[in-house]
Amino acid sequence: MNTTATDNLRIDGQRLWDSLMDMARFGATPAGGVHRLALSPRDVAGRAHFCALCEAAGLAVRVDAVGNIFARRPGRDPTRAPVLFGSHLDSQPFGGKFDGALGVMAALEVMRSLNDHGVETEAPLELVNWTDEEGSRFGVGLIGSGLWAGAHDPARIAALTDDEGVSLRTALDAAGIGGGLETVADAPAPDAYFELHIEQGPILEREGETIGIVTGAQAQLWYDVIVTGTAAHAGTTPPSARRDALVCAARVIDLVDRMMRARGEDGRGTVGQLRVSPNSRNVIPGEVRFSVEFRHPSDAEIDRLAAQFPREAGFIARDCGTAIDIRPVLRLAAQPFDPACIALVREAAAGLGLKAREMVSGAGHDAVQVARRAPTSMIFVPCKDGLSHNEAESTEPGEAEAGAQVLLRAVLARANRPV
Amino acid sequence: MNTTATDNLRIDGQRLWDSLMDMARFGATPAGGVHRLALSPRDVAGRAHFCALCEAAGLAVRVDAVGNIFARRPGRDPTRAPVLFGSHLDSQPFGGKFDGALGVMAALEVMRSLNDHGVETEAPLELVNWTDEEGSRFGVGLIGSGLWAGAHDPARIAALTDDEGVSLRTALDAAGIGGGLETVADAPAPDAYFELHIEQGPILEREGETIGIVTGAQAQLWYDVIVTGTAAHAGTTPPSARRDALVCAARVIDLVDRMMRARGEDGRGTVGQLRVSPNSRNVIPGEVRFSVEFRHPSDAEIDRLAAQFPREAGFIARDCGTAIDIRPVLRLAAQPFDPACIALVREAAAGLGLKAREMVSGAGHDAVQVARRAPTSMIFVPCKDGLSHNEAESTEPGEAEAGAQVLLRAVLARANRPV
Repeated sequence: MNTTATDNLRIDGQRLWDSLMDMARFGATPAGGVHRLALSPRDVAGRAHFCALCEAAGLAVRVDAVGNIFARRPGRDPTRAPVLFGSHLDSQPFGGKFDGALGVMAALEVMRSLNDHGVETEAPLELVNWTDEEGSRFGVGLIGSGLWAGAHDPARIAALTDDEGVSLRTALDAAGIGGGLETVADAPAPDAYFELHIEQGPILEREGETIGIVTGAQAQLWYDVIVTGTAAHAGTTPPSARRDALVCAARVIDLVDRMMRARGEDGRGTVGQLRVSPNSRNVIPGEVRFSVEFRHPSDAEIDRLAAQFPREAGFIARDCGTAIDIRPVLRLAAQPFDPACIALVREAAAGLGLKAREMVSGAGHDAVQVARRAPTSMIFVPCKDGLSHNEAESTEPGEAEAGAQVLLRAVLARANRPV
Repeated sequence: MNTTATDNLRIDGQRLWDSLMDMARFGATPAGGVHRLALSPRDVAGRAHFCALCEAAGLAVRVDAVGNIFARRPGRDPTRAPVLFGSHLDSQPFGGKFDGALGVMAALEVMRSLNDHGVETEAPLELVNWTDEEGSRFGVGLIGSGLWAGAHDPARIAALTDDEGVSLRTALDAAGIGGGLETVADAPAPDAYFELHIEQGPILEREGETIGIVTGAQAQLWYDVIVTGTAAHAGTTPPSARRDALVCAARVIDLVDRMMRARGEDGRGTVGQLRVSPNSRNVIPGEVRFSVEFRHPSDAEIDRLAAQFPREAGFIARDCGTAIDIRPVLRLAAQPFDPACIALVREAAAGLGLKAREMVSGAGHDAVQVARRAPTSMIFVPCKDGLSHNEAESTEPGEAEAGAQVLLRAVLARANRPV
């Protein structure tokens, strides 16, 4: 096959859109979103439907011990490692139709388009649906891709339980998925990995660009913070006798925001979760628990944040007369993606005349785990108002199509490269 | 009776303490507190026990249509209006043994001591247990005293419901208390009202004083505030695109604290209740709802707070790019107590050689309602660490006794004053 033939190859945008709407029936919510927690009956039904679609497209389906679904299309050279691409079909609680599903259904559309046009590739192609990217059910995210990448302890993952006390092991058994989780990491490494995903942020939309060329993932630094003061009557306790845990927490929240803004547009600093005790109108709060997370593309900047935050929060607590307990809960190094894979995404967007920009992923993705074992890049497309993890999450059909088109080009270029 | 005889009259501190511990059996909690919500089965049992004690002390018991219990001891001159004194027996959820109960059991101890010594007063004496001071069950406080003072709409009060949907009317019926709530305010006004209560704050303890001579109650200003931003992914949303409702709320909490401190030791400003949505670690908060309350002894200062707070909070919200909705929910004028009644408390404490200070009540009390219809003052005694609305609430036996002794003196002086 010559370059011109590949360049003219187009995916079927309508078929892609229809397949996305079809998949959104599994766990559809009245408000137009999707509630399809990993390995729930709705997810299991959606997975079976997806396997049937893959088989109908002539792909060889294999499900590993954690339920990751691989579907292979042979290449001319069976000795070459496959080019892998995909995403995840599980959703957030009352999430949207596109987070994850876009990358999986676009991967299927790539396979279907190649079939339609009778295109053969040098290397085999393999699409993947990773199990439990979201982490909403068992409290740990990137489970399937993380096990595959050797980043998780299989015994610990098997024992994770959901809110009803159902373990991941039991959920896998119920879905008819057997085998030891320690085998998941035994799969041979692919030649490369590509993942199409909605941006889940506002940058592409705001700047009028269609394609995000993802150069890596941010470093992350998470804390759980407990501020302890003294609960006391709001009417009778004078200022000098107050040890108000919420006033201290408020100043720490402001600190997190200021530390973020001091780092410009690449900074991220968020207090998303907060609980006040006793939470009564007339009682000075005695305890406040909250989450803190920082993200930044640079590990060095995360090092500085990790040194600065506990120190400055401690000063605030001392001024407020409260105790503060700052517990680190997660620290992820920045994950740069592979320059050659990034270049293929850049060239695909340019070749299609699409407005594109390089960006660092703010969210965690299966690709961040896969990048530990294989050259990786990602393709982002805009989502309306930057909204995700929300039933109102939305992407234009033309944007989904453009993303899938870039995916096709990048995959073809990688699979046909001379080795 | 001459002054010397009255001066030597002593209440029985041990009997008072025993009666407090006895009453604390009704709704006792494992942690040593009391859970005796108004008109709950535990409160109803406690009320019946208390009525029996009053009758055993030879008092004439009358229960009005909202369940306020009055118990009268005749005076030499039946044409004089009675001197009224008491407090409330209902408790906060998992509250303490002393909040309210001290004033009621001390009132009974005053009656018992007068009986023991065969003391007759000029004016009749009447003790009172007001129904539902706390407001914890039906969402409105000072119900019995407020109806009595004409401050509440009887139809609205009758229709209030608790968390199980039980109306106050139904709860009264279940307790065997009949009659129309509109009759409660028909009771003739007493000559004066005295109420002994724990301070519920740290001032007496901190300054080593035994008696608070309460000169009035603070003015109060309450708001419900809703800050609306945009929920968005914490990893992907850059600083310039954030409309973080919690950052705005944090700065308003800091504002409330600064406005309080700018008014010195008389200032009160508290955010006690706060709820974050969606309250997820990785999502920038889209909405935060919280309570704000200010208190101050001066109405003029409350006027200034009412002008300043919405304006400055509005500036903060504008800076944060969020909307803010500030809803006034309560505004109470300061309630000065009666100079003659205050003087009687002051003289009683001085006559007993007790260290005392004048203070303004930071909390709401039945006395604040009663003061609308009768000359009123209150007597405070210390509570350990200033703690109240807490199972650990505690007062020393000697302090309870001192308070009851002051109550006895003030009541006697008022009842025997020449008219």
